Amino acid sequence: MLSSQLSRRLGWKLVRPEIRRFPDGEIYLRITSPLKGEEVVVVESLSPPQNDHLAELLLLLDLCRDLGAKKLTAVIPYLAYARQDKRFKEGEALSIKTVARLLEVVDKVLVVEAHSKEALSYFRRIEEVKCFSLLGNHLATLGLRNPLFLSPDEGSIERVKEAAEAAGAEFDYLQKERLTGTRVKVERKKIDAKGRDVVILDDIISTGGTVVEACKSLKGARKVLACCVHGLFVRDAVTRMRKAGISRILSTDTVESRHSQITVAPAIAEHL
Amino acid sequence: MLSSQLSRRLGWKLVRPEIRRFPDGEIYLRITSPLKGEEVVVVESLSPPQNDHLAELLLLLDLCRDLGAKKLTAVIPYLAYARQDKRFKEGEALSIKTVARLLEVVDKVLVVEAHSKEALSYFRRIEEVKCFSLLGNHLATLGLRNPLFLSPDEGSIERVKEAAEAAGAEFDYLQKERLTGTRVKVERKKIDAKGRDVVILDDIISTGGTVVEACKSLKGARKVLACCVHGLFVRDAVTRMRKAGISRILSTDTVESRHSQITVAPAIAEHL
Repeated sequence: MLSSQLSRRLGWKLVRPEIRRFPDGEIYLRITSPLKGEEVVVVESLSPPQNDHLAELLLLLDLCRDLGAKKLTAVIPYLAYARQDKRFKEGEALSIKTVARLLEVVDKVLVVEAHSKEALSYFRRIEEVKCFSLLGNHLATLGLRNPLFLSPDEGSIERVKEAAEAAGAEFDYLQKERLTGTRVKVERKKIDAKGRDVVILDDIISTGGTVVEACKSLKGARKVLACCVHGLFVRDAVTRMRKAGISRILSTDTVESRHSQITVAPAIAEHL
Repeated sequence: MLSSQLSRRLGWKLVRPEIRRFPDGEIYLRITSPLKGEEVVVVESLSPPQNDHLAELLLLLDLCRDLGAKKLTAVIPYLAYARQDKRFKEGEALSIKTVARLLEVVDKVLVVEAHSKEALSYFRRIEEVKCFSLLGNHLATLGLRNPLFLSPDEGSIERVKEAAEAAGAEFDYLQKERLTGTRVKVERKKIDAKGRDVVILDDIISTGGTVVEACKSLKGARKVLACCVHGLFVRDAVTRMRKAGISRILSTDTVESRHSQITVAPAIAEHL
């Protein structure tokens, strides 16, 4: 777990709150360690089920304050609602703004790779932990042959470049168009993937739709891998990607799963 | 639905927001009606799944503000987390205080029968809608024989008295002791239920445990009914109560179910 990794790395005491559910679904929280006058860092990822994790985080933060915590930092490895960072249509909720408001009780918020600058702009005191070079470092150890790192859209090209430079790999990008909230079209740009190991890199993999679409541009590749920071892998995402020819799926521990083999603890620790 | 009942009763326009879920579980909200300069009342019950409903309510309230709502009222027919209104053990979260903080964005909060005065005390601008006399009025129409209204604990006796007076029934109470978060012991006080129709009345029925325990004191009753304001009926609550001999289960529409046959709309409307 990320919290224990951080505590080991920084030599800070690890406190595990008692977290239960009442029969009706309400969260029960209790912390028995003294927090008075302490600098407290609460680590909670807002991965699915996002609203449960958000409620848990908010209850935890208020409890830490009530128990006398002096400086209070929220480490949110995966920040939910960051993709609703503008009104794409008139009358839409600007959800990330609400999340930002709810978190105003803390002294500092730390998030890992927050999807967009717009999302960050609603927070008063926030720091973003970058980690694409960590992905690159990890990918460099896999013995890939003539690797090509591929961004599924132009917007992420800077992040993919970071990873590629850390791994000494080439990089390129596709053009993605979002058709609906869940369906995307990826332009079949000419990518010379022949005989190469291609890594599709993205910040979030949710249903895997983007990865599956991107795969179609990569005929002749020796291997295709999918690598992301936040692996939500909702519904049958893993099966879909496997069927599309993805031979390996990698993510970091901002969202824990059997694919989260890269830890972001060193990157977070630098900000604490 | 309560919101449409209120809108009909008060002659106010009913706006239905578009509410969907993204594939990963995030809530999507959109309101296409103009709200600029309007007085807006948002109606949302915090029934299970409480955290989803809470997130939805908070997003809705912020959206109404963003769209220019002038006066903003949150009608919360069932207020979640009201039972965690004090620290029963050291270090526990005071959950209702957090809920109160999150709702500070509105001009007024209206809740129906909020479990305790302590719960209300954390809100800055709150009004409680009482409705036990409505329950009494409804129960009076059922043709009960020599009715006895029974409170499962001493704390609720005043509310049960209200209902009993509205129905012209006698009332009494049992003594309840909470053994754990979910297990209760109800003292088998001598209740002369012989040949009578007894109504066990409570503010919340969750797992039905309290009702089932109370039943044990009512040997010889002609019929036993269970009636509450907030019918959560979690897990197998209904089956358990039926097995214990409850012949009829009634609740209000603060939480909608097939048992919510009493509407609290008239009581709420008086406060708007």
